[in-house]
Amino acid sequence: MLLVIDGLGGLPNPQTGKTELETANTPNLDHLAAKGICGLIDPVSPGITPGSVPGHLALFGYNPLSFNIGRGVVEAIGIDFDLEPGDVAARGNFCTVDKAGLITDRRAGRISTEKCTALCQLLGGLVIDKAKLFVRPVREHRLIVVFRGEGLPADISDSDPQQIGVAPRAITALCPEAERMASIANQFVAQAKTTLAEHYPANMILLRGFSQRPHFPTMGEVYKLKPAAIASYPMYRGLARLVGMEVLEAGNTIEDEFAALKQNYTDYDFFFLHIKEADSAGEDGDFDRKVRIIEQIDDALSELMSIEPDVIVVTSDHSTPALLRGHSWHPVPILLYSKWCRPDGVREFSESACVLGGLGRFPATQIMLLAMANALKLNKFGA
Amino acid sequence: MLLVIDGLGGLPNPQTGKTELETANTPNLDHLAAKGICGLIDPVSPGITPGSVPGHLALFGYNPLSFNIGRGVVEAIGIDFDLEPGDVAARGNFCTVDKAGLITDRRAGRISTEKCTALCQLLGGLVIDKAKLFVRPVREHRLIVVFRGEGLPADISDSDPQQIGVAPRAITALCPEAERMASIANQFVAQAKTTLAEHYPANMILLRGFSQRPHFPTMGEVYKLKPAAIASYPMYRGLARLVGMEVLEAGNTIEDEFAALKQNYTDYDFFFLHIKEADSAGEDGDFDRKVRIIEQIDDALSELMSIEPDVIVVTSDHSTPALLRGHSWHPVPILLYSKWCRPDGVREFSESACVLGGLGRFPATQIMLLAMANALKLNKFGA
Repeated sequence: MLLVIDGLGGLPNPQTGKTELETANTPNLDHLAAKGICGLIDPVSPGITPGSVPGHLALFGYNPLSFNIGRGVVEAIGIDFDLEPGDVAARGNFCTVDKAGLITDRRAGRISTEKCTALCQLLGGLVIDKAKLFVRPVREHRLIVVFRGEGLPADISDSDPQQIGVAPRAITALCPEAERMASIANQFVAQAKTTLAEHYPANMILLRGFSQRPHFPTMGEVYKLKPAAIASYPMYRGLARLVGMEVLEAGNTIEDEFAALKQNYTDYDFFFLHIKEADSAGEDGDFDRKVRIIEQIDDALSELMSIEPDVIVVTSDHSTPALLRGHSWHPVPILLYSKWCRPDGVREFSESACVLGGLGRFPATQIMLLAMANALKLNKFGA
Repeated sequence: MLLVIDGLGGLPNPQTGKTELETANTPNLDHLAAKGICGLIDPVSPGITPGSVPGHLALFGYNPLSFNIGRGVVEAIGIDFDLEPGDVAARGNFCTVDKAGLITDRRAGRISTEKCTALCQLLGGLVIDKAKLFVRPVREHRLIVVFRGEGLPADISDSDPQQIGVAPRAITALCPEAERMASIANQFVAQAKTTLAEHYPANMILLRGFSQRPHFPTMGEVYKLKPAAIASYPMYRGLARLVGMEVLEAGNTIEDEFAALKQNYTDYDFFFLHIKEADSAGEDGDFDRKVRIIEQIDDALSELMSIEPDVIVVTSDHSTPALLRGHSWHPVPILLYSKWCRPDGVREFSESACVLGGLGRFPATQIMLLAMANALKLNKFGA
């Protein structure tokens, strides 16, 4: 049972000297910490602030420096777009160009999501050279474009020059096999330009990060587990699918998620339960809300503990201190409870207590092996 | 701000059970440790005693197992010899040979530095096959020879067999392009033999470690910083130059060095300040002097703290316990202070307190990333 409290790690409130987790009243987490073993993880590397994708890949045991997911795919799974094998996805921006065709605003004045949705409907539904196109809004000026067809490689360049004062770039093939794909993408951009001409400030689009669903070994293959994911946000469901987890109906609240776990408990032997709200509060700089959410999770934990999983891991994909209003590089507290862990002296789940924990400080990619060992699921290495 | 107290780490005095750092009265370092976060670093690897060169390369973020500097170059920068690109430098020994030409003493009875200087003057100033030669004394029997000319590769073998009872070896080219360089070096050795014939016990020389200035990516390139070095010993200035730091006028005392920092503070965004004296005291086995020097540095630190750098790191390139009278493998205490560090429970800067620090124990090569993160100078990795 891997419980990910997104953005859990924090920084001390200058008035109290205590982090969000240290401020929260968490009897259940403290009980698990006292019976279990604690430590600190580095999701990517000391000093490196992880995005959500590398942070989660590390938790699942996939080295985020080796396992890359293209930007287009990340955006597509972030809106729950059901990418088929072979689909090429690109991240797009609506942007503004002047009469000479030079970019004056890469974000088209950050148009509303409603406007973006309407424009995506104008652009969608095309078939170009036998490729079927899907255009979907993300948020504000952001969109995705998905190209579906036979034999379309993703090895083409961006049209987005990532600067203003220049024209969008022609998309070029990065290998001979990608000539047709580059041509289709360029035709789409040309059509979009015509369609958007009268929609200033969103009178052009920029595309980048053309990519296909990567083929990662699944968690089932790697760990011989039957894994399930419970996550209310689409991005995390998409990531779970990429590593071969079955995605369960999670509902909308923290309580819903724990209820889903209880309901499905006997059908799987690994659960990833993701709770987004702590990260959102941190990103908003709302220290007190993050404290309350941690307390709410702690309440819901009694539900989990009543099931008595063999191994419980509670941790996060990165820190999101309210003081920094964003992800940070600070190492992340972790607790591991199992009948077979060797308990340490830690009596509460907090950043400062975890410094002295028996797990020490270690790379997040090692968590799954530790969890498997504590479930007595790993054989001896060597004679 | 990276403050390197050379040889800082120590071993407990058997009478008191306290190391040099633990014995010293260090209110300023303790204040920084209490407000900051502490830990222990391994400059090269646990159990490995670092020389000054690998120890410093690690502090600057260059893996000392990958970034090598030849012995000739190390000696040349150690005496502030201004190596030009393409110069080939060799470390030399004056030695003693018998009538049959066999080596009887690889160090010529450790002749005085004065004698060495006089002999180097006899050997210097030659031009052989268009290559200009520089011969410079180092200390006692040690010297350097620098060959300056067009197209001289350093890929030639040593003449020094590193044993007695055999003759000096003929120098050979290790690749076809190095034939001329090998010939020049052999001609020099032959001339030296003639010149030194009547100067028993220094009647011959041995050369080894032919090498050129390596081309490392600069700290400016790697970290996008404008770095400056303040160091009163030539070796450390030379090392700083090799990684692209600007070397400032440092004066001769610890107080001079801190004054140089204050004076130049607004012109750079990274400072390496090196203090040699603690290591020298350790090498001399003088526990009490090392304690006094640490206290003197602590006094001078108020100067540094008044500038309020965004990030202060205090550590060392290796331990030099007075009890061992030399460098050692013991991990080195480190403190990092910034507004954005997550403080730990450590309240004083000492080896024993750092064991429990929030940074844990980690490779020295990660220090720069941590420092950059704490200066908010690194972007998020991945989406």
